[in-house]
Amino acid sequence: MSDIAASAIDLCRALVQCPSVTPEDAGAQGVLEKRLRAAGFKTHPIVFSQEGTPDVANLYARFGEGSPHFVFAGHTDVVPPGAAASWRFDPFSAELADGAIFGRGVADMKGAIAAFAAAACAFAERGGAGRGSISLLITGDEEGPAINGTEKLLRWAYERGERFDHCLVGEPTNPDALGQMIKIGRRGSLNGTLTVKGRQGHVAYPQRAINPVPHLVRLIGALIAAPLDSGTAHFDASNLEIVSVDVANPAFNVIPAEAQARFNIRFNDLWTPETLSAELHARIEAARRGADYLMRFEPCNALAFLTAPDRFTDLVCAAIERHTGRRPSLSTSGGTSDARFIRAYCPVVEFGLAGATMHMIDECAPVKDIRTLTAIYATLLEDYFSSVP
Amino acid sequence: MSDIAASAIDLCRALVQCPSVTPEDAGAQGVLEKRLRAAGFKTHPIVFSQEGTPDVANLYARFGEGSPHFVFAGHTDVVPPGAAASWRFDPFSAELADGAIFGRGVADMKGAIAAFAAAACAFAERGGAGRGSISLLITGDEEGPAINGTEKLLRWAYERGERFDHCLVGEPTNPDALGQMIKIGRRGSLNGTLTVKGRQGHVAYPQRAINPVPHLVRLIGALIAAPLDSGTAHFDASNLEIVSVDVANPAFNVIPAEAQARFNIRFNDLWTPETLSAELHARIEAARRGADYLMRFEPCNALAFLTAPDRFTDLVCAAIERHTGRRPSLSTSGGTSDARFIRAYCPVVEFGLAGATMHMIDECAPVKDIRTLTAIYATLLEDYFSSVP
Repeated sequence: MSDIAASAIDLCRALVQCPSVTPEDAGAQGVLEKRLRAAGFKTHPIVFSQEGTPDVANLYARFGEGSPHFVFAGHTDVVPPGAAASWRFDPFSAELADGAIFGRGVADMKGAIAAFAAAACAFAERGGAGRGSISLLITGDEEGPAINGTEKLLRWAYERGERFDHCLVGEPTNPDALGQMIKIGRRGSLNGTLTVKGRQGHVAYPQRAINPVPHLVRLIGALIAAPLDSGTAHFDASNLEIVSVDVANPAFNVIPAEAQARFNIRFNDLWTPETLSAELHARIEAARRGADYLMRFEPCNALAFLTAPDRFTDLVCAAIERHTGRRPSLSTSGGTSDARFIRAYCPVVEFGLAGATMHMIDECAPVKDIRTLTAIYATLLEDYFSSVP
Repeated sequence: MSDIAASAIDLCRALVQCPSVTPEDAGAQGVLEKRLRAAGFKTHPIVFSQEGTPDVANLYARFGEGSPHFVFAGHTDVVPPGAAASWRFDPFSAELADGAIFGRGVADMKGAIAAFAAAACAFAERGGAGRGSISLLITGDEEGPAINGTEKLLRWAYERGERFDHCLVGEPTNPDALGQMIKIGRRGSLNGTLTVKGRQGHVAYPQRAINPVPHLVRLIGALIAAPLDSGTAHFDASNLEIVSVDVANPAFNVIPAEAQARFNIRFNDLWTPETLSAELHARIEAARRGADYLMRFEPCNALAFLTAPDRFTDLVCAAIERHTGRRPSLSTSGGTSDARFIRAYCPVVEFGLAGATMHMIDECAPVKDIRTLTAIYATLLEDYFSSVP
């Protein structure tokens, strides 16, 4: 096991040393591909393009041809380091200090990629998955617009006949300490805009104008007056946040012509975008009082989903507990992730490092955690292929 | 009388032909000064300056040395013409067509200045005001910031010993037809800003953030829930308008740190800025529920004021009725004017042309109205100096 862990540490540092800020790959997927090919994986680097978005490198790699087919998913792209001078070390130097690796993306999520790649390679090199298959599904467009990434890679794989049985995404799911939490689903996310039209005029003659602001304030009140729900067995309550209200009238003596509110809803498995839209329209209509409004929703690419606890989630939890002593909670909290795309193809859970430093200055991951995570993934592979029929 | 009217028409066209868009004078006050000097007025052109604002031409002219001292007040500056190509005629050509003079500022308020200047000159030339005095108080900074205009000119005049008994401002007070309305006061105007601070965060983790928008929406609701008053004998009800609400958060996935509302209050003689501030703070406090807010008011230079109906207002109304057949209403409606500064020095009323086209494309004034207005001002001067002790 210590050889596997050492390999994961080396791979992690090599990945962090590639400054793969979205949409740049900066050699990261090449580092990974080389390691996977050496272990017998068939690799498929593939670039996706779309007008108006940057080209993005993706990598699909498979070992074995039969089933069950287990897939590790992750992203090699990272968020920008911000002010590099504020970092303790160069954010792409992968410096080792105080028992940790420092660098942009080490927690989110190059550490986990290195861990599952090392575990998968070792498993393959030791004879592998019997009749089964192990794949890695890697994108460089998770922190960016997510247009040329996982969603297209999944479709590409599906069209060439790839079928997955279970997936683990290596997102940093633990708030502080390895083993605290796995994600078995995610809330959906829906963006909306509420616009009220009035009639512009001089404040001294309000009877000749219609101020849209009091209408908008009342309609916002109607949107947020009551909770959408009180949560479900595995989900927190759905939540609507008004993220902006804008009139942008620079004058004090003019009643504005229009006022707009923008909002985001994180919704659980009680809702779809359609039922949410109907509910919010009903709330607005009940408070309308003649307001001339328009409520629009952006296309929703993040539905709520749940991987109901079963033998697979039990396997993941058992592997975690064996190496950390912690029984992880089964959570659906937090933001969206690429798991929202994968769930259309197979059951998916997420488990990776601790996220405390992700996206921050001096992002880091303890070497000990990367070693333990590698062991967890290795155990999971062994248990999966020996127990899942 | 027809000579006086012809003189007013000529003077009006000469004034309109000066493109005196604030802060430019473009020769307008020189035209006026020349006419006044010819009639025996002592004239005092004076430029006021203040750091950060443009220099502005002003003109004070007096005929006679004793009392009573009657003053006509007005502004020679005009608002920009907008798209000159949209005008029927060049906006500074003072074209005569369909019995009217067309041009920027003819209604607001070069027509009235020409009318009162012609009436005052004729009155002076015919022997004048007995022991009394007639003055003109002319600024070029009414449509602009009003920093280097009437307020400074009044103080300058006061410091050199000028004392006024009554004033008439030539603002276009009639909604549509000459004789409909005089203004015997104006509402005050107070600008305020209400800022609520929250704590920024990701929408997926609302428990770690404080969204300021629901607080602001509730506090706005408290500000506008109840009318400030129901009006007084001579004033409409005070009115608060929310003129803007701004968060300016471009993201859908971020809870903003701050939200701001801006509002204007047009208030009647029941209120001062101090009592209004106290009332609005009380309303906010009652709805606060822990909101971290700051409410600030801009310095108020427009207090509510009233020139209570008396012999002077009767004189003005009688002169109007004699020449138009209309008994004007005594109003305090509409926006602010320079009368708000004059009221600190003497009783002031406002009466001029019809305002229907002011500030608009194809601003115009019927020649007939300018003639009638000149006659009204001439009658007012005669009646004033023969009847006011």
